Amino acid sequence: MKICRYDDDKLGVVIGDMVHDVTKAQDEIRAAARYDMMGDAVITALPQWRQRLQEMAAKAPGKPVSGVKLLSPVARPSKAMAAPVNYAKHVAEMAVRTDIRTDEQKQVKRPSKIAEQGIFLKALSAIVGASEGIPIRFPDRINEHELELVIVIGKKGSDIPKEKALDYIAGYALGFDMTTRGSEDRSFRKSIDGYAPIGPWLVTADEFGDPGNVTATLHVNDELRQTAETKDLIFDVPTLIAFASAFYTLHPGDVFFTGSPAGVGPVKPGDVLRARCDRIGMLEIKTRAHEIRA
Amino acid sequence: MKICRYDDDKLGVVIGDMVHDVTKAQDEIRAAARYDMMGDAVITALPQWRQRLQEMAAKAPGKPVSGVKLLSPVARPSKAMAAPVNYAKHVAEMAVRTDIRTDEQKQVKRPSKIAEQGIFLKALSAIVGASEGIPIRFPDRINEHELELVIVIGKKGSDIPKEKALDYIAGYALGFDMTTRGSEDRSFRKSIDGYAPIGPWLVTADEFGDPGNVTATLHVNDELRQTAETKDLIFDVPTLIAFASAFYTLHPGDVFFTGSPAGVGPVKPGDVLRARCDRIGMLEIKTRAHEIRA
Repeated sequence: MKICRYDDDKLGVVIGDMVHDVTKAQDEIRAAARYDMMGDAVITALPQWRQRLQEMAAKAPGKPVSGVKLLSPVARPSKAMAAPVNYAKHVAEMAVRTDIRTDEQKQVKRPSKIAEQGIFLKALSAIVGASEGIPIRFPDRINEHELELVIVIGKKGSDIPKEKALDYIAGYALGFDMTTRGSEDRSFRKSIDGYAPIGPWLVTADEFGDPGNVTATLHVNDELRQTAETKDLIFDVPTLIAFASAFYTLHPGDVFFTGSPAGVGPVKPGDVLRARCDRIGMLEIKTRAHEIRA
Repeated sequence: MKICRYDDDKLGVVIGDMVHDVTKAQDEIRAAARYDMMGDAVITALPQWRQRLQEMAAKAPGKPVSGVKLLSPVARPSKAMAAPVNYAKHVAEMAVRTDIRTDEQKQVKRPSKIAEQGIFLKALSAIVGASEGIPIRFPDRINEHELELVIVIGKKGSDIPKEKALDYIAGYALGFDMTTRGSEDRSFRKSIDGYAPIGPWLVTADEFGDPGNVTATLHVNDELRQTAETKDLIFDVPTLIAFASAFYTLHPGDVFFTGSPAGVGPVKPGDVLRARCDRIGMLEIKTRAHEIRA
């Protein structure tokens, strides 16, 4: 099942090219949830509601996907994790760059392994959906796309064994770990507003299947820039979940950027980014100049 | 006004040693808030509700603070920011340490300035209140306390000028930027569950006064370990807000750890941490061993 959020905080099920409105389910689920819960009520309730959502969608009239404003598929995420240096060819391309600061290369190169670098965070205020676009905040600095498969956590867990890790996944989406290059901590320069686009929707784990053999591509305007093959991940999806949850509890609605393959490159205001994956669909998002509103 | 959360998600106003229950206000505020808002509904509503909260508290019977379980004063924070290297003496003490990994010293020393290092994030799943305690997850590694003044943001803002920054603050609390030393990204090893205690409550900005001249102390068991004097901050409170909001939007309920003074030191399971500040009160929290629940 493909689940989207759209327009003014509506919940939809995507079937073919049509969105079917199931916002009534969202209202009911949220009304029953605790305000102070960690994470998102709808993502938490998916196992119990999946069947009903499907039935509601079958009865609801459809609306073309092209006519709605897609939002991030998770309304209230609690954490946005991201894996650094998780594709060998991306580590290699960063090591030879001469256009980025020494301080940042040191973040990537030393120590060079994800086990030593750990997982970094992106701000929740950076998360946007396809319709919201990406404001480029510092056009004079290098701003780059990093295409990534994104996991959405479905169940609370800590110290999760690798062999049970897939049970903790609600679904998958495409995402960009947008990055401003520089000396600052990763969790700062990768947390600019709009620098964590996710979408176009969530594909539930049962429909998605094995995350170990996924291909995704990124075109900027009409140029192919990146191809991600998750079989090349240094820490695969179960290993990422086990590794992160050894440090902190994962909550339903947490999102996890799994790492960028080689081919990262510059974006400038006005570019159109299109990520495609057979099992998900297309995440299309535009960049623009950031406007200061004092 | 001192505002606390306690027991099973109740809202209270602290007057002297007593908590006065104003949970009905919280219920009303939350019921009127959008589910998909960034940040916390009660913090957002404080300017409109302050007077009424005070009136409700005056009529509500009090209960001794010592008899309630204090939670983090913000139910749904949206971001936990933290300033690295923001007191010169702390930068100096870290530079000469021989017991921490070279990789971590490089994070602190190179580049050495906060303007170049930026602000880092802590996971929201790390936030706890005084009653919840701090589970020490990796007792074989070095785990340390970092006493900090914590800002709670009260109003949405981006590109905030330094001279208007104080208008964006709801209030202040004490906090510990608990840290496991090591090679991992700061946003990982400082985001362990319980490693972001905040409390004991929020003191509203009007009552708190000038954040530029605050003294706070930390005792571990009965030993004085740290004294923070915010007049020594390298980036003071308005500068921190201007700097961070140049990168991303701040939302009501965002919390901001302002940086640790010198005197950081080890904690082990069973220690009691007591932070004191005349204008806030005492944040007392216990450490314990982490238990793996598979």
